[in-house]
Amino acid sequence: MPRVSSKVDINGDLVAFGQAVRACRKEMDLSQEALADLAEIDRSHMGKIERGERNVTLLNVVRIARALGLEASDFLRAAGI
Amino acid sequence: MPRVSSKVDINGDLVAFGQAVRACRKEMDLSQEALADLAEIDRSHMGKIERGERNVTLLNVVRIARALGLEASDFLRAAGI
Repeated sequence: MPRVSSKVDINGDLVAFGQAVRACRKEMDLSQEALADLAEIDRSHMGKIERGERNVTLLNVVRIARALGLEASDFLRAAGI
Repeated sequence: MPRVSSKVDINGDLVAFGQAVRACRKEMDLSQEALADLAEIDRSHMGKIERGERNVTLLNVVRIARALGLEASDFLRAAGI
């Protein structure tokens, strides 16, 4: 089965989400790879999420937020979404 | 190209999200079909989202929340996520 891709055109909400991921992990002094491992998300997928290039799923939003010690709702608020 | 499915095993966060969608649209006296149309989401997909059977994407979370007059972050908080 081919790998499912959820690539989307650049979207402001996804870019805002990705920027919040990057800002929050830098504040916690985590590398992108370390956060990916903590959140149990593929490292290359995490890079695309941070650049707003993927329409991230709710379960991955929850995984990323929890890896950063936050609730998903607080995380979206920080992203202005 | 086959339809991409993001079916997942039943997950508590997805069930909580779906229950919040249903509760909020009922409070607004909207049918499932009317909310799907407002959010520009396929009607059968909306049914699966409400039952927690799909790993909804962030853009669809945003569309559903806005169709209900809420920010995505407030909506996730209402869902306890």
